[in-house]
Amino acid sequence: MAEHGSVVSPADAVARAVNDGKVHVLLADHSGSVATIKLPLIAAALSSYPNISIRIILTKSAAHFLSGQSEEQPTVASLFDIPNVDGVHLDEDEWIVPWTRGGSILHIELRRWANLLLIAPLSANTLAKIVNGMADNLLTSVVRCWDISPDNPRRPRILVAPAMNTQMWIHPITASQITKLVDEWGVNGRTPSVGWYEVLQPQASKLLACGDRGSGAMLDWNEIVAIVKDRLSLYAVSP
Amino acid sequence: MAEHGSVVSPADAVARAVNDGKVHVLLADHSGSVATIKLPLIAAALSSYPNISIRIILTKSAAHFLSGQSEEQPTVASLFDIPNVDGVHLDEDEWIVPWTRGGSILHIELRRWANLLLIAPLSANTLAKIVNGMADNLLTSVVRCWDISPDNPRRPRILVAPAMNTQMWIHPITASQITKLVDEWGVNGRTPSVGWYEVLQPQASKLLACGDRGSGAMLDWNEIVAIVKDRLSLYAVSP
Amino acid sequence: MAEHGSVVSPADAVARAVNDGKVHVLLADHSGSVATIKLPLIAAALSSYPNISIRIILTKSAAHFLSGQSEEQPTVASLFDIPNVDGVHLDEDEWIVPWTRGGSILHIELRRWANLLLIAPLSANTLAKIVNGMADNLLTSVVRCWDISPDNPRRPRILVAPAMNTQMWIHPITASQITKLVDEWGVNGRTPSVGWYEVLQPQASKLLACGDRGSGAMLDWNEIVAIVKDRLSLYAVSP
Ligand SMILES: Cc1cc2nc3c(=O)[nH]c(=O)nc-3n(C[C@H](O)[C@H](O)[C@H](O)COP(=O)(O)O)c2cc1C
Ligand SMILES: Cc1cc2nc3c(=O)[nH]c(=O)nc-3n(C[C@H](O)[C@H](O)[C@H](O)COP(=O)(O)O)c2cc1C
Ligand SMILES: Cc1cc2nc3c(=O)[nH]c(=O)nc-3n(C[C@H](O)[C@H](O)[C@H](O)COP(=O)(O)O)c2cc1C
Repeated sequence: MAEHGSVVSPADAVARAVNDGKVHVLLADHSGSVATIKLPLIAAALSSYPNISIRIILTKSAAHFLSGQSEEQPTVASLFDIPNVDGVHLDEDEWIVPWTRGGSILHIELRRWANLLLIAPLSANTLAKIVNGMADNLLTSVVRCWDISPDNPRRPRILVAPAMNTQMWIHPITASQITKLVDEWGVNGRTPSVGWYEVLQPQASKLLACGDRGSGAMLDWNEIVAIVKDRLSLYAVSP
Repeated sequence: MAEHGSVVSPADAVARAVNDGKVHVLLADHSGSVATIKLPLIAAALSSYPNISIRIILTKSAAHFLSGQSEEQPTVASLFDIPNVDGVHLDEDEWIVPWTRGGSILHIELRRWANLLLIAPLSANTLAKIVNGMADNLLTSVVRCWDISPDNPRRPRILVAPAMNTQMWIHPITASQITKLVDEWGVNGRTPSVGWYEVLQPQASKLLACGDRGSGAMLDWNEIVAIVKDRLSLYAVSP
Repeated sequence: MAEHGSVVSPADAVARAVNDGKVHVLLADHSGSVATIKLPLIAAALSSYPNISIRIILTKSAAHFLSGQSEEQPTVASLFDIPNVDGVHLDEDEWIVPWTRGGSILHIELRRWANLLLIAPLSANTLAKIVNGMADNLLTSVVRCWDISPDNPRRPRILVAPAMNTQMWIHPITASQITKLVDEWGVNGRTPSVGWYEVLQPQASKLLACGDRGSGAMLDWNEIVAIVKDRLSLYAVSP
């Protein structure tokens, strides 16, 4: 997936944009959740925020949900039509240029670039990998190398919006893993001065895509957008 | 891998069979254990249970063990010759039909369909993924969304039969992970009214396929069949 | 990746070499770290150790770093030019020969063969998988079935040399996982008589490949070689 009108490597393109004076939002999506189809809506709604630059991390499998099969499920390519979407990054982009000493590294550059990372939807699987420190794709690598320097008031944040089938959500492991993000690593956790996560709790009860009624559905995307916009004020560059 | 004489999607086929008045056993197998070759024997032995319907989850790699290389290792296709085997499901079946809103989802339908899931053999790797909440293939997705509603006397069960090389088995992490399944999530654990796992402990000492003698070999398949048949009486549909 | 001048299966070739009277070092490397480029240097420096036999485990992705793109990054094939490198093993070698009863199994044979395993670099991702008991490739399978029989004074060791970006390194999950290797499973841990890990701590501060300055860089490869040579004296076969 290329940069808009760019011939440099994806990592170099990100590196160049670090100091462009904009506020930088990284949107991430995992392969497998029906809530993936909200991504274009979220990106479009954020795109009107003043002086914003948006980059999107997708996994290969997101194409299952974004292959133009219906109006609410456009193609991946169409994401570039959304204003201020300046890059779409896939796992294989990490390795597009054979690395040599001094070369820039995509997940590191994306972390340097981003003021805020929104993972929406967050799957049960990616939640498990994050909490256990795994880093086996571009998204989890960005998460694993996140800048968590303490005592930085403008420390970048990771916002996650879990989306699960009700049974997945009420499994006891979910609560223990969410608790880790909230209490140990959260901006409002036990030691807020070092936390960097915010969990956007799912809806209490809803008719889910799988036909079940219950908890676990991703927070309404309008509310997600409102929260992200609010947090962005922390990072807005004064002119 | 198709349904027997069916042209609907795998997920829809499973959905239609939920209320067929049979007792439903889901057999699962992971890619990499020599004990995989017991699967056809287990399926055949269960097939005579009254009013049974069997479905099998395989991973791609199971083909390494079931590619017709010897009499005890028949092909995957031959599993359909076993009576009452009504479906064989592979990872890629989750995505066979591009998902659109309202579409059925295979791992959810299999969970709804199943009275009992038997994972035999259970590998060290799949044990680790299950205990940590990972769901990166069809089997672990079914496991992650298992119906664990408390206070349901006919709550479906997951029976697991670990099979490991002796050194893998005596590694301290094995005991801690098995303990989780038994004590925290087990039907005979600390809070039996909410548990859903049964661990069929491996044999104490045996000459293993790798040439070592020791613990870790999967429980004899005849004993596994006997236990599964016993548990099925919990779910038999009264006529 | 074949054995030097051998037509037997990789697993059989390893099995035959178990009692060749040499001291056996298994070098392992993971797909994704810039420190991968030190592997040829480490192998070459060890190759002069008396009566040594070296085998190397690589992942497919190591080819990203070893594809001949510069002098310090030679090709994978060139590893065979290093004296006493007797095998290079890739993930797919586990399945090269369709397994039948009695067949040898590569990860088991490599574990039997090895006196010492050096994982350098150890990535954040592989650290997480090891600590959580996952075994989804050749390296982590060897690690998962390591011979940890207590009270064996010549018990084989696993030496790991973590290499991470500074932010990855200072993430709180790193310390908790490293602590597990050191305190619970370490040769100098709480119960040294049962431990088998040695952690070669990264450098305190250095200019990293990603451009950051900080902790996390792999210990200097010369120091790693010195430590490995020292430990090998535990296993040297008396003539
Ligand atoms: C149609 C479909 C919808 C799914 N929806 C969800 C979901 O909402 N939440 C979830 O945690 N997993 C969901 N899954 C399961 C995940 O896709 C699966 O666990 C996958 O391995 C997650 O990979 P990832 O974490 O890399 O995205 C769904 C799967 C399918 C086939
Ligand atoms: C011939 C052969 C036999 C194996 N037998 C076992 C076994 O009995 N138990 C086990 O835990 N792993 C065994 N393994 C290792 C697993 O295949 C490996 O960990 C794999 O990644 C497991 O994947 P899965 O959990 O998706 O099945 C074996 C590997 C090979 C090549
Ligand atoms: C150019 C490049 C350099 C990397 N260097 C490291 C590193 O030094 N340490 C690390 O933990 N991960 C590093 N990564 C990220 C890993 O490659 C990634 O987490 C991968 O999934 C690790 O897989 P493995 O554990 O199987 O090697 C690097 C990635 C790239 C693209």
